[in-house]
Formats: sequence, C-alpha cells, structure tokens
Amino acid sequence: MMVNTVRFALVVVGVFGWSMMLPSATQVGLSDKVLVFPYETDFSFVSLIPQKEMGLRAFTLCMRVATELPEDRQIILFAYRTADYDELNVWRESDGRVSFYMSGDGIFFHLPPITTFRTSLCLTWDSRTGLSAFWVDGKRSTYQVYKPGHSIRPKGSILLGQDADKHLGGLEAGQSFVGEMADLNMWDFVLSRSMIQAWHYGHRVPKGNIFDWGTMEYELNGNVMVVDDD
Amino acid sequence: MMVNTVRFALVVVGVFGWSMMLPSATQVGLSDKVLVFPYETDFSFVSLIPQKEMGLRAFTLCMRVATELPEDRQIILFAYRTADYDELNVWRESDGRVSFYMSGDGIFFHLPPITTFRTSLCLTWDSRTGLSAFWVDGKRSTYQVYKPGHSIRPKGSILLGQDADKHLGGLEAGQSFVGEMADLNMWDFVLSRSMIQAWHYGHRVPKGNIFDWGTMEYELNGNVMVVDDD
Amino acid sequence: MMVNTVRFALVVVGVFGWSMMLPSATQVGLSDKVLVFPYETDFSFVSLIPQKEMGLRAFTLCMRVATELPEDRQIILFAYRTADYDELNVWRESDGRVSFYMSGDGIFFHLPPITTFRTSLCLTWDSRTGLSAFWVDGKRSTYQVYKPGHSIRPKGSILLGQDADKHLGGLEAGQSFVGEMADLNMWDFVLSRSMIQAWHYGHRVPKGNIFDWGTMEYELNGNVMVVDDD
Repeated sequence: MMVNTVRFALVVVGVFGWSMMLPSATQVGLSDKVLVFPYETDFSFVSLIPQKEMGLRAFTLCMRVATELPEDRQIILFAYRTADYDELNVWRESDGRVSFYMSGDGIFFHLPPITTFRTSLCLTWDSRTGLSAFWVDGKRSTYQVYKPGHSIRPKGSILLGQDADKHLGGLEAGQSFVGEMADLNMWDFVLSRSMIQAWHYGHRVPKGNIFDWGTMEYELNGNVMVVDDD
Repeated sequence: MMVNTVRFALVVVGVFGWSMMLPSATQVGLSDKVLVFPYETDFSFVSLIPQKEMGLRAFTLCMRVATELPEDRQIILFAYRTADYDELNVWRESDGRVSFYMSGDGIFFHLPPITTFRTSLCLTWDSRTGLSAFWVDGKRSTYQVYKPGHSIRPKGSILLGQDADKHLGGLEAGQSFVGEMADLNMWDFVLSRSMIQAWHYGHRVPKGNIFDWGTMEYELNGNVMVVDDD
Repeated sequence: MMVNTVRFALVVVGVFGWSMMLPSATQVGLSDKVLVFPYETDFSFVSLIPQKEMGLRAFTLCMRVATELPEDRQIILFAYRTADYDELNVWRESDGRVSFYMSGDGIFFHLPPITTFRTSLCLTWDSRTGLSAFWVDGKRSTYQVYKPGHSIRPKGSILLGQDADKHLGGLEAGQSFVGEMADLNMWDFVLSRSMIQAWHYGHRVPKGNIFDWGTMEYELNGNVMVVDDD
C-alpha cells in the first residue's frame, strides 16, 4: 500500500484547545501538543522531517508514549527506513519486550510495561562501543552491546504510527500505534544520565539537533489528532 | 423490580461518627461523609438529585471509591438513565477494565485495579472532539475518541450502587456496588489537568455545578450507611 | 574448561568515557566504573584479588547488579572457591529465589526480582548465630539461620561472571552472568542496618576490608567491559 492510498487527513487546530479539520500539509512546531492516534488503521501516520540528515554513528531518541493496546499486541513506536533497509525501528514486541532494529536482527529489553499512563522512554546507542540502553522515566536499563561499528544511513523516511515494509508502503493495521505520543526529540550523540533525567522531568536540556518537538516539521496522514497537552 | 419494592431505608446519623436508623427522605449535604454499601443486594442504592438538568455535551465526573469485591466481578460505579437509554453508565467490567457507556456500545480502559484502598477516579468527555479519558489519582489515561457530536439527554434518574435496566427498575445484585464512595462531584465541562490533580489532593477547586458532594441532594434506599469520613 | 582456554581479553579505557581494547593484566581500582558482561559465554569473567585472606566467620557482601536475563535462568552472582569446596556462592536460582551456599546445601530467599534496573544487594552472615539475610535496596529480608559455627576457608579464587565447578575450571554458559555489576564491597563483619542503608544511598561507609570497589585489584578475562558509570 503506497502513501497515495491514504484516505483522509486532518489537522486539529486549537479551538478552546481543540479540533477543526483542515487538509494536511507540512506543519511546524508541536510545543505543548500531543499526537493522538485514536484508532487501529493501516493509513494513519505522521511523517517527520529531520533537521539534519540521519547518517548516524550515535544517537539518543526520546519520546513520551501511552497506549491502551493489549500487552500482547506488537506496536511500532518509531520507524526510520531507507529504500532497502529498516535503518532504525523501535517496537513494543508481542511478548512485552521493547526492542530496536538497525538493518537486520534486533535487540530486546525487559522493561516495565507501556501503559495507559505516559511513559518517558529514551534509547541511546553508540557505534564505537555498541553500548545501547533504554531509559524508562529516567532510569537506565542494563546495557546491551549491539552492532558496534555500524552506521545508520541517511536520506530515508521517518514515520510515527506505522511501520513501512517498503519505502513508504506496506502498512499493517496490526502493527500500528494507537495511543498518544509527545515530546519526541532526537540527538546525534549520547546524552548523559543527568540530561536524560532532566528531560524526563521536563527541565531544560539541549534541544534535539535531529528532532526537536517544539520546532518539529511534520505531516499528518490519515486519522491523527494534534491535541493540546494538559 | 420497581423502586416500590425497596424493602427498607436507613439514614445513619453520626453518633461517635456512626449509625442510627431513621426512615429515609431527601437529605442534603455529604461534607466529610462517605457512603458505605456494606452488602451485595438488589435493593440498596442512593438516588442523586442534580443541581441542573443533565443535558450534557461535555462533563467531568469525579469520585473516590474503594471495594473488596473480587477482580472478576462486574461493578456499577455510576448510572444515569432516561426512560429508554442508559445515558451515562460507568462500570468496572468483569475483565478488570473500567468502561463507560452512553446510549449504546461503550469504551474500555486498562487502569490500575480498584482495590480496598481508595482510588480517586475522574472521567472526562467532550462531545466536540469525542476525547475521553479516565484519571486515576490525578494521572490521565490515554485519550480515546468516543461518540463525538453526541449529547446526553436530560430529565433522567441517577443511581449509585445499582444499575437500573429499566427506568428505576431491573436491579441485579451481581452488578451492585459494595464498598465505599465519597466526594462525588460532576461538572458540565472538562476540568484541566491541574484542577483534577487539585481535586485529587483535596485542594480547593470550583464546586461541581451538577453535583457537589458538600451540598448534594440525595435519597438513601435499602442498606446504605452515611459515615463520617476519617 | 581451564582458565588457559580463555579466548580473548579486553580492557576498556575511557575515551570520551569509553572503550579501547588492550591485553588484560591485573588492574587496580573501579571507582565510578561498572562491569558490563554483554553476552552469555563460558569464558568471560573477572577475577578479584582480596585485600586479606578470606578465612571468615562473618561477612557482609554488597554489590549493585542489573540483568536482562529471563526470570527462569539460573545466574551466578558471586563465586568463591577453594580446591575442593564452593566456599561462598551467591545465585539467582531458576525459580527466582536468591540463594547462597557455603560448602554444601544452600539457603534460599524470596526477594523482589533482579531486573534491568539496578538492584542494590547485600548479604550478611555471622557464624556465631548463623543469622543470615539479604538486603535489597537497604531493606532486610527475614533472617534465616544457616550453618552456625561454620568457617569459610582462605586461599581460594573469587570470580564474577562464572561459576567454577573445579578450581578455576568447569565453566558453563548457562550459569554465566550477563548484565552489569558495580560497587562490589566486602567486609569481614556484619554491617549495621544504618551502614547498609548508607551504602545503598551512596553515602560514606567504612571501606570494605576484603574488597573495596575503589581500590579493587582485578583481572578481566574474555568479553567483559569496564565502562564509566553514568
């Protein structure tokens, strides 16, 4: 299924804080907003435009996420894909583990469940050592070593809400995200523990140089709502 | 079963904080009181008289609730019914989820269990967007979109402790509430996060304009106790 | 499998906080460092050299530990062995209990699970009474009485990451430790509750007189990383 099968698009503009549908186009800035994916679909997603190319040898990716999906449902949390590779996919697996994949086999972490209440989730990876960890509400998981020496390729597409099995195609409802995402930020280096904890508590941290929620360029596709964060 | 089958009624007046039976009548005000539903019955309930008609296009409903009932027992938490419709029913379902229904199919949330310790539970809904959420001890669940454009009809009956399958009839012991309810308040608009958290912590918030616990008009039916809240 | 079958060794030296491989030798001092055992192997371990001989009639052993291993996987947490005896082994058992063994049958404790987030774990034992307990994040388990009158023999070998079934041999991947260990300290007496809590919170306590993490003499074998603790 290609992107032109997207069936409708809506932008919610604040009126008393909410809601008015407009045709989609590139939007800028999500300060104090949350993305709501209300239904399971194979056509609702948000494309993100990075501030710089994503040829990466290290990164920190952070977001706040909440879902009502059952514990045994696979969920895509972040998908970055070039023509032939899943460059960086983050999943909640059907066995409850949280995983990420770069161009092939992934790595799996036992984290506290992602629930209806918002979890702050960060992921760090450094190509030099391969050390990777998830951070849940500011607490680091055990390090695992994953693909030392690897590089993430630039010039791909970033989606929230769907996993594209082909370049912008092959979407599956059964993998889609349903719930809320907010405050996604990405840096091309590994943030320190104190920075990640500061981000978790909403304190000031260096703005993401790949993605910064406050100045994010994005396109809404399908049924995704932009809602005032309360 | 019609309301005239109610077998007895009691009002508990504070004597050392407890208990003396009197025939029931409309009472006013529950400041610093808690309703205790001590047994599973099909005849014990509390009727609430709203301060204004409940033709609603948005609301916030809050209460503090505790129960010893088993986790797989269906429990009615709030029932507002007009002649032909369940206008607004809130349930703890037999699968542990918490749900609400307006005139038909409901919507289900995965919340932490309702236990023997008091949970502060709020529910918000706005017809304009359909965005609905439960708030547990001040923390919001993931938004779900439910019946945008819908209106709740006025001029019905509000019960705590029982679900009426007909207008004031058809009560079932297996759905009854057993436990404690306190501090029920309802507003005809959506409270902000900070207001809901303030309510949770017992700070001053705008009084409910549909129900305000402190000035609540109510009638006790069957075996329900009004006890000093400690 | 003998120690000379160890296949490779690496020491990670801080470069931007991380990583550069060098041949192993006795190293000294692990202040602000964490040992990362990234993979399940039968050849990766760390030998510890005690500051004094381990002929012991009482001890306190403390460490901070985190693992991604499944809940039903046996894990060696500490192994001290003389020629013919397992003098002091600490395990997470396959049934989730935490245990320790001195020269024969062990003793088992039901503790909170050891997870991907760091647990601070202490073990105390006194030969006079046999009273033994684990301390999790500063909280003591129920006392159990274990081998009153017993003595731990001196002049053995101490391993982290593997259990040697013979003196420095007989390693099994299925018992190996995978994850992180930090801040291991050992004293030849029983610390008070207030001292153990102080250690848990990172406050100043008397330095371990058998092992002191800050001045630890150790040898890395196989694939073990020494990483800046963040």
